[in-house]
Amino acid sequence: MSSEREVLTWQGFGESVDDLARQVVDDGYEPDVVLSIARGGLALGMGLAYALDVKNLSTVNVEFYTGVDQRLEVPIMLPPVPDVVDLAGLRVLVVDDVADTGLTLRHVQAFCSGYVAEVRTAVVYAKPRSVVRPDYSWRATDAWVEFPWSSRSPLVQRSRD
Amino acid sequence: MSSEREVLTWQGFGESVDDLARQVVDDGYEPDVVLSIARGGLALGMGLAYALDVKNLSTVNVEFYTGVDQRLEVPIMLPPVPDVVDLAGLRVLVVDDVADTGLTLRHVQAFCSGYVAEVRTAVVYAKPRSVVRPDYSWRATDAWVEFPWSSRSPLVQRSRD
Repeated sequence: MSSEREVLTWQGFGESVDDLARQVVDDGYEPDVVLSIARGGLALGMGLAYALDVKNLSTVNVEFYTGVDQRLEVPIMLPPVPDVVDLAGLRVLVVDDVADTGLTLRHVQAFCSGYVAEVRTAVVYAKPRSVVRPDYSWRATDAWVEFPWSSRSPLVQRSRD
Repeated sequence: MSSEREVLTWQGFGESVDDLARQVVDDGYEPDVVLSIARGGLALGMGLAYALDVKNLSTVNVEFYTGVDQRLEVPIMLPPVPDVVDLAGLRVLVVDDVADTGLTLRHVQAFCSGYVAEVRTAVVYAKPRSVVRPDYSWRATDAWVEFPWSSRSPLVQRSRD
């Protein structure tokens, strides 16, 4: 595990959108719907939808959870969960900011896979250790990535029961 | 109607997120869920969710449609449409990139309003002619706004039946 940091600016993010859209087009993939993994995948999902002329977007909330007596963190979906029937028969592009462990991408692939015609994945950064190798990625890195949307603390800390 | 153009960069967009998040915090509004209007609202929805420590995001697809024999464009929702029951009793922050005519924001407000505890709206740009005055906006303008995500043509043009 590297202790390096990779700092992404908003401008750099814009370049990643252009590059990833080009990869998808050159690959001949024509998604019907872009499914963004919240929170970090929404900006990329939006950018790719415009570049690929896709009008239908959906969002799925995935968070890592360590349950009582559990040693491993597992990804879980938080509400609102999209109705998977709405994705039936469609070509889906699943989008996130980073494939780190890859468990989130794998979880969302599994969520879709029984229903959709095809699912492919796109991320800004892919880490070599990811259990899923994304179909499209902008950069490979071992470093800790500081995204412009998540590198600072929230302005407020919300209490949760 | 102005013929001026306002060009927003990704960097400028980042500044708008910071400013809007501060407005929401200073106003004391604590949303439970951020509902982004696709396509243009997703990046702002994501940015505000991180800054406001909101974990739950949803997306609604709204497009303007001119039906046969209709003179007026009306906003319609495209699938996947979120299940409004998932929003029941929640404080919602509805987010878009621009309040132009304001009809989209009004449509989404109406979609939520019978179910949610409260709905407020945030946009990057608000136009004076908008039928809805957003609760939070970064800039007021009459100009045509070129957003970094939508100012260029798509890389591909998808045919639609």
